Amino acid sequence: MILAPDKIKAYDCKQAEREDKLVPHRRWHHDALPKTQDVSKFPLSRLTEKERYIVLSDATEIVDLIKRRVYTATEVLTAFVVAAVAAQDVTNCLSEIFIDTALERAQELDRHQEETGEVVGPLHGLPVSIKDHIKIKGIDTSTGYIAWAYKTIADTDAVVVDILRKAGAILYVKTQNPQTLLSLETNNNVFGRALNPFNIMLTPGGSSGGESALIACHGSPLGVGTDIGGSIRIPAAHGGLYGLKGSVARLPHAGLMGSHDGMDEIVGCVGPIATSARDLELFCRVMLDAQPWLVEPALLEMPWKKDVADGRNLPSKLSIAILFDDGVVTPHPPIMDALQRYKAELIAAGYDVIEWNALDHQVGWDLIVKLYLLDGGIEYEETIRSGEESEVPQTKWMLDHARGRAPYTPAEIFRLNVERERLKSKALAHWNETHKYTASGRPIDAILCPVSATLAPPHDTTRWWGYTSHWNLLDLPAVVFPVDRFDSSAYSGCRSLAGTPRSDVEKLVMDQWNPPTYHNAPVCLQLVGRRHNEEKLLAILKRIEADVPSKIKK
Amino acid sequence: MILAPDKIKAYDCKQAEREDKLVPHRRWHHDALPKTQDVSKFPLSRLTEKERYIVLSDATEIVDLIKRRVYTATEVLTAFVVAAVAAQDVTNCLSEIFIDTALERAQELDRHQEETGEVVGPLHGLPVSIKDHIKIKGIDTSTGYIAWAYKTIADTDAVVVDILRKAGAILYVKTQNPQTLLSLETNNNVFGRALNPFNIMLTPGGSSGGESALIACHGSPLGVGTDIGGSIRIPAAHGGLYGLKGSVARLPHAGLMGSHDGMDEIVGCVGPIATSARDLELFCRVMLDAQPWLVEPALLEMPWKKDVADGRNLPSKLSIAILFDDGVVTPHPPIMDALQRYKAELIAAGYDVIEWNALDHQVGWDLIVKLYLLDGGIEYEETIRSGEESEVPQTKWMLDHARGRAPYTPAEIFRLNVERERLKSKALAHWNETHKYTASGRPIDAILCPVSATLAPPHDTTRWWGYTSHWNLLDLPAVVFPVDRFDSSAYSGCRSLAGTPRSDVEKLVMDQWNPPTYHNAPVCLQLVGRRHNEEKLLAILKRIEADVPSKIKK
Repeated sequence: MILAPDKIKAYDCKQAEREDKLVPHRRWHHDALPKTQDVSKFPLSRLTEKERYIVLSDATEIVDLIKRRVYTATEVLTAFVVAAVAAQDVTNCLSEIFIDTALERAQELDRHQEETGEVVGPLHGLPVSIKDHIKIKGIDTSTGYIAWAYKTIADTDAVVVDILRKAGAILYVKTQNPQTLLSLETNNNVFGRALNPFNIMLTPGGSSGGESALIACHGSPLGVGTDIGGSIRIPAAHGGLYGLKGSVARLPHAGLMGSHDGMDEIVGCVGPIATSARDLELFCRVMLDAQPWLVEPALLEMPWKKDVADGRNLPSKLSIAILFDDGVVTPHPPIMDALQRYKAELIAAGYDVIEWNALDHQVGWDLIVKLYLLDGGIEYEETIRSGEESEVPQTKWMLDHARGRAPYTPAEIFRLNVERERLKSKALAHWNETHKYTASGRPIDAILCPVSATLAPPHDTTRWWGYTSHWNLLDLPAVVFPVDRFDSSAYSGCRSLAGTPRSDVEKLVMDQWNPPTYHNAPVCLQLVGRRHNEEKLLAILKRIEADVPSKIKK
Repeated sequence: MILAPDKIKAYDCKQAEREDKLVPHRRWHHDALPKTQDVSKFPLSRLTEKERYIVLSDATEIVDLIKRRVYTATEVLTAFVVAAVAAQDVTNCLSEIFIDTALERAQELDRHQEETGEVVGPLHGLPVSIKDHIKIKGIDTSTGYIAWAYKTIADTDAVVVDILRKAGAILYVKTQNPQTLLSLETNNNVFGRALNPFNIMLTPGGSSGGESALIACHGSPLGVGTDIGGSIRIPAAHGGLYGLKGSVARLPHAGLMGSHDGMDEIVGCVGPIATSARDLELFCRVMLDAQPWLVEPALLEMPWKKDVADGRNLPSKLSIAILFDDGVVTPHPPIMDALQRYKAELIAAGYDVIEWNALDHQVGWDLIVKLYLLDGGIEYEETIRSGEESEVPQTKWMLDHARGRAPYTPAEIFRLNVERERLKSKALAHWNETHKYTASGRPIDAILCPVSATLAPPHDTTRWWGYTSHWNLLDLPAVVFPVDRFDSSAYSGCRSLAGTPRSDVEKLVMDQWNPPTYHNAPVCLQLVGRRHNEEKLLAILKRIEADVPSKIKK
């Protein structure tokens, strides 16, 4: 494969190169690929029984099994590689492939363990997938832009990647992200569109959508995503997975490619997508035990409080506020049903449950979209134009919010920031005041809420970010967890929505409701905690999962 | 006194009002005021012996004496009020006066203590002075702008003020800050220029220069300032005091008046100015024990680690790097002499001492001045123009850095931020690499350095901020402490500086050196710590003070 000359079909080269690197690891003929909307079972079907056991384990179990020498790192990686190739074949979730060096590293780790009896770190032998725009030394970082393809070979590892490597993790694939990254779907002109394995008519979410499809297909036990408006949590939700967006600057963030480097006004977060709550905790613990603030100056020196994450100090009776409706777009019935079930079951389990009166989701959205596009969208447009590519539909929808508007002046930016801080103060006071309504007299411990107004939507139809972007605006940690899968054939609720929509976007979402559309889509919910309280948030999630089991069959 | 009609000599009214409120507390005739350059002894000379004992105590001792009922809050406040009026008479350090309500509060606190035997909080009865631009409910916040006089009566307390009140502190005066606040001197058209009590030909520093003059005159035991480029540390240094600028967002910051509200790119800090290191610790502890992050969302949830501040966990052998010269402007001889003395005495006391190679102070200054003036200075200019006042000399010097330049675009701002983060990363790596040069093999614990290239300079001649603003740019905590007083009559060193200046600013500073100019000026040094390590920094300072005594006679 010859590197693409400037401007000549970078996408053809990229996709062909990817294919070349996958071929040696493919165990099936193209004919074997499923023709169904649900392709999620295909990857498992290509594995041996032992491999299936491996890829159905969570990261915590995998590192334990390797440490106890039940499996070698090479066996584990091989199983995930085969599943990842299958995941790519059915969902188009991968971008860059470096399986060969990964297998070499696995063998090296196995030798080390054989010779010393020791593991190199807490993630010894764990395969970890990485979202495309996170730098891996020597690997291209095209980030969904034609203009960047072949021109963004990283000369360093991102901090998160460096820590993963030193902890013993094995990097083997990068995963798809959308053009501009500013999208809750995953589509670009370099690698094409990623699909939802549970129903390929639906999006896997974005911008970490490659991770969603890959991990949902068991092609990776743990992935690293980024989130500035929902980009970890939406794909986690649409993939039936766990995803954590922490507070800004708690987890390593340096070493990303992307537009608007240097933007202070709204800042994204790196975070994990995984198949268990404890794996999210494992990721955070490994990151913060590495003291990343000693290499990335923007990070908070706030060590991981394992005792808190383990549930010590957690009140015996938790107070949870449920946000059913953000005041802009009522969630679709399966999401309302899930919230109602949790309300009933939490109360039955002895929790103190109140309702959260949503504040400012529309105002917050109107503000955050200005913060995303301070320059009027010029930088995005220029990068797209310089690649001689077109805007994919979700890019166009987003950039239309600011199309033609002049870049903001410093004075205008300052005013937007003042408004942002005003909304934060108001929300914080609102949280503090919940002590008036809880049985304990304490403010609530967490908010339980939808991740989105809909389950994974049909491609190119995502329109409302307010259930996730709101927590970015307020800089509150938020975790997504799976509670069910939607079976439209067994669904007996309403088949169309009545009532007067409060807005154009609610009308669109109401009109979208049709149970068969969402058949087989995962149902997830979101827990939101106090800022800088990631440990407590995960402890609450683990407690809730112990008390109110998910309906998903393993 | 009638409130000033719009635009008619607000300054005359302001100054007359201030005078009216001071008259009842003045024990001397105008003729008694000293005609000397050194006016620092005048306030003490007006006090009774008991009052002198009170105002020579630090805040920690005062709250202890009140708690143990050695003094009443009223006695303490009365002593500081008389000293404050004297301080005003000789240095023009005050702005707003509310002594009457303060005396009422003192009586209320005394009654409370008599009746209950308890203090209301850890600062019960402690008089605390507040820099003008920090909001106190019901008090004007003109902040050195004619345009704001009488139009900025605060409707809430700043968070720091609220915590002080709840801790039992008594607020009685506000102190002068300069026009624009962006100055290391203290001069404005509302209240006039503040003078250095040790030599009135010199500036007390700025922008918290009123605090400096007031506390140096024993008119307040503890003051609250703010610092975005040296505005706590420079006045602390020029007043022979202690001052702490913490990391951004560690101490409460909400509730300030000032230009550029909403600016994220470079953020200031509220902090204490005091007469002992332990008082700085007391202030921080009271602030963070109040959990201010529950009311101010921008703050870090990072509780005060009293054990660390008390020196627990401090290595038995500290590694200190000394920065003698920032590569732009060599400090004047008395400062170099002080650093050399500390070097020798620290080594003699068993410290591990290395030299700090200064990085990027000129580059950092060129950057930070752009960040200060993202809008080209328009907002400052408009506020000044709307008050129909002129720019004071230090304002003019500062605004000339951007005069006529267009406001930066978002893309330009992002690039400046990227450069800021690059400098931070480089400095952090530089710090980490000191492990190669220390005896312990650990990176250094702190940097010891000048606060400024000169002692308190003659009015309107401050030109180089690089010894303080650099730590704002890097967001490192920095504390100033007194080590000596400069006696030009006993000085036997060089009386003029030879050599070729490296820059215009160095030439200016070299030409400025003339020992009599700085007669009686305090000599202070600065310790810089790792980000978010305020506790450790104060513990190091306390250790150094125990091992290397200051030359100042109490």
